[in-house]
Amino acid sequence: MSTAELDAGVAARLKRDDRGLVAAVVQDASSLAVLMVGWMDDVALARTLATRRTTFWSRSRGAYWVKGETSGNIQTVREVRLDCDGDTVLVTVDQVGPACHTGAATCFDDGLLELS
Amino acid sequence: MSTAELDAGVAARLKRDDRGLVAAVVQDASSLAVLMVGWMDDVALARTLATRRTTFWSRSRGAYWVKGETSGNIQTVREVRLDCDGDTVLVTVDQVGPACHTGAATCFDDGLLELS
Repeated sequence: MSTAELDAGVAARLKRDDRGLVAAVVQDASSLAVLMVGWMDDVALARTLATRRTTFWSRSRGAYWVKGETSGNIQTVREVRLDCDGDTVLVTVDQVGPACHTGAATCFDDGLLELS
Repeated sequence: MSTAELDAGVAARLKRDDRGLVAAVVQDASSLAVLMVGWMDDVALARTLATRRTTFWSRSRGAYWVKGETSGNIQTVREVRLDCDGDTVLVTVDQVGPACHTGAATCFDDGLLELS
């Protein structure tokens, strides 16, 4: 695992939630599809910036995970952008294979809600 | 304000955080740019689905807000999709004017981080 530390200037701009996390929206650099949303603490963000592999904090498992580490469906980072109020990052990636653990191209493919 | 109630089937699929919120990623239907991320509880999501105007819960102000209500930079909803694990919705919109309160087109325009 990377031992990268987050730049102090970036760390100062983060507005973390009660668990110390920011939302990380992952967008495909080619199709511009929104692939998934994960969660990052300072360590996960630092590792993502240093390794160019998206690294998240799993709120359910309480552990770091690198996207594609098991499945091979890795995300190579092109850009990371922090939003205006510091509680979300937008990560633009080159995605190998499907992004969703279900095998769908994105985590939103099967979730269309009815407008009421 | 809309008094819409969230469909029980949808409500059962939501995995809310400690504050009862899911993340709401807003994407421009034309450019596919990720415009902003807000937060929705059941009421905000129900209002978004019913009114076709994005409605969020402000974690800092502790109040509902409708995007563009003050600025006129409204978002008309085309689609809402729930992700595979139920903690995020992707809202596709037609955006009037800039999406960010700073006047930038998106909330991520000025936030490019350096890959280390």
